[in-house]
Amino acid sequence: MDLKQLLSKIQIDVSKFELNASVDCVIFTIQENKLKVLLTSFLPETPWMLPGGFIGKQENAGTAAKRILLERTGAENVYLQEFKTFSNPDRFSIEPLVSHLILDDEERKKISELHKRIFSIGYFALVNFESLTLTGGLFDENTRWADVEQLPQLMHDHTEIILEAIDALRKELYFKPIGYNLLPEKFTMPELQNLYEIILNKSIDRSSFQRKMLKWDIYKRLEERREGVAHKRPFLYVFNKEKYKLAIQQRINFGI
Amino acid sequence: MDLKQLLSKIQIDVSKFELNASVDCVIFTIQENKLKVLLTSFLPETPWMLPGGFIGKQENAGTAAKRILLERTGAENVYLQEFKTFSNPDRFSIEPLVSHLILDDEERKKISELHKRIFSIGYFALVNFESLTLTGGLFDENTRWADVEQLPQLMHDHTEIILEAIDALRKELYFKPIGYNLLPEKFTMPELQNLYEIILNKSIDRSSFQRKMLKWDIYKRLEERREGVAHKRPFLYVFNKEKYKLAIQQRINFGI
Repeated sequence: MDLKQLLSKIQIDVSKFELNASVDCVIFTIQENKLKVLLTSFLPETPWMLPGGFIGKQENAGTAAKRILLERTGAENVYLQEFKTFSNPDRFSIEPLVSHLILDDEERKKISELHKRIFSIGYFALVNFESLTLTGGLFDENTRWADVEQLPQLMHDHTEIILEAIDALRKELYFKPIGYNLLPEKFTMPELQNLYEIILNKSIDRSSFQRKMLKWDIYKRLEERREGVAHKRPFLYVFNKEKYKLAIQQRINFGI
Repeated sequence: MDLKQLLSKIQIDVSKFELNASVDCVIFTIQENKLKVLLTSFLPETPWMLPGGFIGKQENAGTAAKRILLERTGAENVYLQEFKTFSNPDRFSIEPLVSHLILDDEERKKISELHKRIFSIGYFALVNFESLTLTGGLFDENTRWADVEQLPQLMHDHTEIILEAIDALRKELYFKPIGYNLLPEKFTMPELQNLYEIILNKSIDRSSFQRKMLKWDIYKRLEERREGVAHKRPFLYVFNKEKYKLAIQQRINFGI
């Protein structure tokens, strides 16, 4: 892609967008026993960043976040949750995007119009790796999952945004237990515990974990066992969506 | 106060402030066994609203929130916590502030400059009624505490902001138990339970409450009792600040 194409990509219709208000989406998944986050970039030469963009003049931030995630990555039906707004006066700079380009005065002027103070509202989601389809997005050539323990250099304050999102994700587990969107239809307690351990990044005592999980009465034990797992043959469970919804309404304490 | 004074009050130096980014502060206290919230108004004739204002060009939102709370109410040293950003395109209107005034064209123009789309970042705090001094603020003639169960008509979306802040306050109790800022130096378990019941707006089982509170090991029982409380003579406790800090770092589950 050449400069012209880049400029047309980042050209913004100023009548349609709030040029100082954006959203950034932190999409987590668990893959290969690691907590990963979705990154994009404009071009192979420009730094990695979160999927994000300007809020439309007629949109609220939540609507913008859904639209932008779809436009950037092709991901649909993701439940995004707001967690924090990033407001440092110097957090945004257009430089990293254009520093490798030779620009004339007019192009520079065009770009400098985008160089304003931007307040960015952060959203996060935890999605099932298998069920998320990343196609058709504006940057789908330049999209990847990165291990949160080994993030590459990111644009602006996106590293900070991701760290805050991890914190918000862990806090969220107190109010919403890991549910049907991350589990296969039938699963074992060790498999569920593994998800918690990956997200919380700590090991959890097995028997107290199972006691808590079963106390909430949202996972139902079947008369079936997982075969072929060493010599243990653990029981299989299914998720009870109705009881889950009820438990959330009652604001049960799901801390573990 | 006349129109001229009002205009000078709400006149904003556009070189110093972001005219589409503000903060709103939801300051809670407990008084007379009720959860109350701090409201202000420009004039006796204008609607009640939260203490809020524009973010300075050199400020981040947190710094702005502290400054604005001080300017509006005189309250210092309040630990404010961000909880949500309000972004509906039509959430802000200058009309309620000026609808009772007769304005000429120039005045109307001046006011319409303030009539933009405003993103507002919400902050909340839970403060001790006795230790909060409300003096010297811009609106200190027009400041009051309102019972959250009986809110007056509020400007813009401030009722929604308060409801969201109550939700955030209740969630926060999972991560930060009610601490030294709300309690007298020595207190009883029934007094502590009463605070939780007011904030959560529900009754709590006494024995399970005490078991949980003592398990966290942040309240230390003295060999003293509260005298003159019917026939019960409950033990007095003091708050252990060091253990409290440690428990928060370890992210103990404080849900009750």
